[in-house]
Amino acid sequence: MVRKLLIQLFSCIFAIIVTRCLASTHRQIPSLGLVMSSRDSISTETYLPPDFEVNYYTQTLDHFTYRHESYTTFQQRYIVNFRYWGGANTSSPIFVYTGDEGDITRISQNVGFMTENAPRFNALLVYIEHRYYGKSIPFGSTEAAFANTSTLGYFSSTQALADYAELITYLKRNLSAESCPVIAIGGSYGGMLASWFRLKYPHIVMGALASSAPILYFDGITPQNGYFAVVTKDYREASESCYTTIRQSWSEIDKIAALPNGLITLSKKFQICGPLKSSQELKNTLEMMFVLAAQYNNPPTYPVNKYCDAIDGLPKGSDVLSRIYAAFGAGSPSGSCHFTYKVGLSNTSAWEWQACTELVSPIGADNTTMFQASPFDLKNYTKDCEDVFHVTPRPHWITTEFGGHSIKSVLKKFASNIIFSNGLRDPYSIGGVLQNVSDSVVAISTAQGAHCLDILNALPSDPEWLIMQRNSEIKIVQGWIAEYNTMLVNER
Amino acid sequence: MVRKLLIQLFSCIFAIIVTRCLASTHRQIPSLGLVMSSRDSISTETYLPPDFEVNYYTQTLDHFTYRHESYTTFQQRYIVNFRYWGGANTSSPIFVYTGDEGDITRISQNVGFMTENAPRFNALLVYIEHRYYGKSIPFGSTEAAFANTSTLGYFSSTQALADYAELITYLKRNLSAESCPVIAIGGSYGGMLASWFRLKYPHIVMGALASSAPILYFDGITPQNGYFAVVTKDYREASESCYTTIRQSWSEIDKIAALPNGLITLSKKFQICGPLKSSQELKNTLEMMFVLAAQYNNPPTYPVNKYCDAIDGLPKGSDVLSRIYAAFGAGSPSGSCHFTYKVGLSNTSAWEWQACTELVSPIGADNTTMFQASPFDLKNYTKDCEDVFHVTPRPHWITTEFGGHSIKSVLKKFASNIIFSNGLRDPYSIGGVLQNVSDSVVAISTAQGAHCLDILNALPSDPEWLIMQRNSEIKIVQGWIAEYNTMLVNER
Repeated sequence: MVRKLLIQLFSCIFAIIVTRCLASTHRQIPSLGLVMSSRDSISTETYLPPDFEVNYYTQTLDHFTYRHESYTTFQQRYIVNFRYWGGANTSSPIFVYTGDEGDITRISQNVGFMTENAPRFNALLVYIEHRYYGKSIPFGSTEAAFANTSTLGYFSSTQALADYAELITYLKRNLSAESCPVIAIGGSYGGMLASWFRLKYPHIVMGALASSAPILYFDGITPQNGYFAVVTKDYREASESCYTTIRQSWSEIDKIAALPNGLITLSKKFQICGPLKSSQELKNTLEMMFVLAAQYNNPPTYPVNKYCDAIDGLPKGSDVLSRIYAAFGAGSPSGSCHFTYKVGLSNTSAWEWQACTELVSPIGADNTTMFQASPFDLKNYTKDCEDVFHVTPRPHWITTEFGGHSIKSVLKKFASNIIFSNGLRDPYSIGGVLQNVSDSVVAISTAQGAHCLDILNALPSDPEWLIMQRNSEIKIVQGWIAEYNTMLVNER
Repeated sequence: MVRKLLIQLFSCIFAIIVTRCLASTHRQIPSLGLVMSSRDSISTETYLPPDFEVNYYTQTLDHFTYRHESYTTFQQRYIVNFRYWGGANTSSPIFVYTGDEGDITRISQNVGFMTENAPRFNALLVYIEHRYYGKSIPFGSTEAAFANTSTLGYFSSTQALADYAELITYLKRNLSAESCPVIAIGGSYGGMLASWFRLKYPHIVMGALASSAPILYFDGITPQNGYFAVVTKDYREASESCYTTIRQSWSEIDKIAALPNGLITLSKKFQICGPLKSSQELKNTLEMMFVLAAQYNNPPTYPVNKYCDAIDGLPKGSDVLSRIYAAFGAGSPSGSCHFTYKVGLSNTSAWEWQACTELVSPIGADNTTMFQASPFDLKNYTKDCEDVFHVTPRPHWITTEFGGHSIKSVLKKFASNIIFSNGLRDPYSIGGVLQNVSDSVVAISTAQGAHCLDILNALPSDPEWLIMQRNSEIKIVQGWIAEYNTMLVNER
């Protein structure tokens, strides 16, 4: 069942989204609160400071066909911030966030790499909302857009990239900024889009910062076990006994569940709001908790450490499930009950549509991890997608369209100006580019970093290694722009 | 009216196609016979030597959307020739012709660069038919496919490139040839596809030979007048008096047409089969003749010289139109009449569909050429396409998707392994890449060459400059493969 959980976990600011959910659903997954504690102060909802202007562009529905319907348009939302821009005359750069699976107003308030560096670069900031997210919904309403594959069918990464190409071309023309270099910035799925955008549209974007972009977690390039192997390593590094406890907990849960009234016992032990329907329900909820803590294992709180402190903190001789509960229940008001994580696809989930069409990351656990084995099963995956969305996944499409196999030899003398940044504690980093491909297609990893940390808003408490990672990225981007300006001068 | 003629002129082997047309329509445009004289011995129809195997691949109709219809498939024809292949074990290369606007069986018999060099490279030869051409027609029949935009809408260059990506990936897996380098080869529109394929799918194709590919004849990058300026230059180089005669002929025609019974006089003078309906009809026919002669100004016959010899060959004092007729009538059996070139779009023309959707080359003549002024008029062009195909052109799409503006600075440090070859007497060369972009994105031009000459079958009479051009290309491709093999060894 793990797989079904994971297809929701790409976002940079997932933590923030969950925080919002918690606020509105009264702590549905309270124990996740820990995960967000470090950066949830930035979870503003729709408030935008006045220098963030919201605009809409009349976007083409289908860039790649010429049917009558292809010419349908929709209003694509984007945000611009001119506050720091040096202007077209000075060929000042344009930083573009290649929008991903979220509301662009929220994204725009969280990408510190853009706002914090805009003054240094005299950069224009542009954030483009991905089609079918936020307010960039074709067919007039979410209900209409998500009605069936006739309307959802236009929801794909290639169409999104073409949207960005068209919109940026329009914007540059409109601002007479044709000579201004564009840098794409994105994290997680947005990072994939940023790197793919540079690869497919080098004439539109002269460089890309792709943070925590698992572009190699497709089509068997990365071992399916990789994600859970990293989670496991994270916990072992935090505490060997913590790791052992978690590893033992699954069979403990199964053992108790198999006893008479076992599920009731478990429900009570874990203070579940409604009685558990299966041991799997509890295991999924716990797994989700542990996995998210690893993915968003951010300073200064480091949720993996917090969980392990709770697990290890009980007196010697405490039983395994009490230790697990110590982590699970931590932070919730005493006496409140806990909701479980609901597994299963929803035909109104935009991200799940993407996972059911092209973003098929074969992620599964085997017995070498601290989780129970749950191999990725394409057949079941396909069946679920067909049942819920009436669509059949194309698991080889991403590598056919964007590559990934032998990336080093393919891109060594092709492509330039891409930074793949990763935090190696982020389980998705295993599907990222972790070695330099060439002089200008480079990997910048931090041993202790988590998902997208480098591009999110900085905190005063940020550790030295994170500041250094950001500084390296800034230096590289400065180099791109200097080179670009030299070229411009030579052309004149 | 010029524009409407020109949208049919991309093909490498157009000359051969016209030859066939002539055979079947009893010399509809007899004077064009001159143009083809050099290479029309290769115009076999459907006969394929036994080492050319015809296969079909079940291809996806729409790669970029996930509607129910997207999953429709069609049978895409491709031809393989294993005769010279060294096999997967030796990582021998695969030469792929990126099929263009023609029947792939005919194309496969004309691309000498592939067949003649296969033994030297131990290359597997693959020729992929472009969707909606030849037998690679979706929806079961040409009639169904061309019925309306619901079925024609899937006919686009981006879909065609994705077809190639999918098919080549399948073929390599099927032959266990994943480690074999693929070189794309194409001419004219096929050359555009070859270069775009390398740019968009570097993970599938490690190099491209793009012959006579006018990838810069879009969106105003190349002056619209360029095509006719080159034609004019060609004629001036052949003979200044010939050029002057042609230049004068248009107003002569108009002058006579304006007289009482003028059109009848002209019809008689030029032995037109049916009476002319307008002077434009005659002018279009002559313009087509002169333009094609320049585009396919092939050795050893050099049709531009032949026309000019005929024009200049009449006795001193001969009138302008008698000179023009000397070229026009040359080669036709005495006493036979001449059909005129019919202008106007046809809703069954595959190429015209492409010109009406994305391949919008703004080509027009001004008064500095030897033709009457006929500027490109996007408004009329659009109206014609809307009338005939019920489709609106997207004139900025090609540059949005594939680039072209500032190509040198965009690709200087991005992209590698592309040869742009041109013959500078080919009027389309003006829209080609004529300068080296970098060490490995190079331009190879010949001063005397015409359209696609370097990749078509060699003739014993070929001049030294053509042989040298081919040899340069071979050397470069050998370099790519050597570099690739070194990389393979280093990876092991």
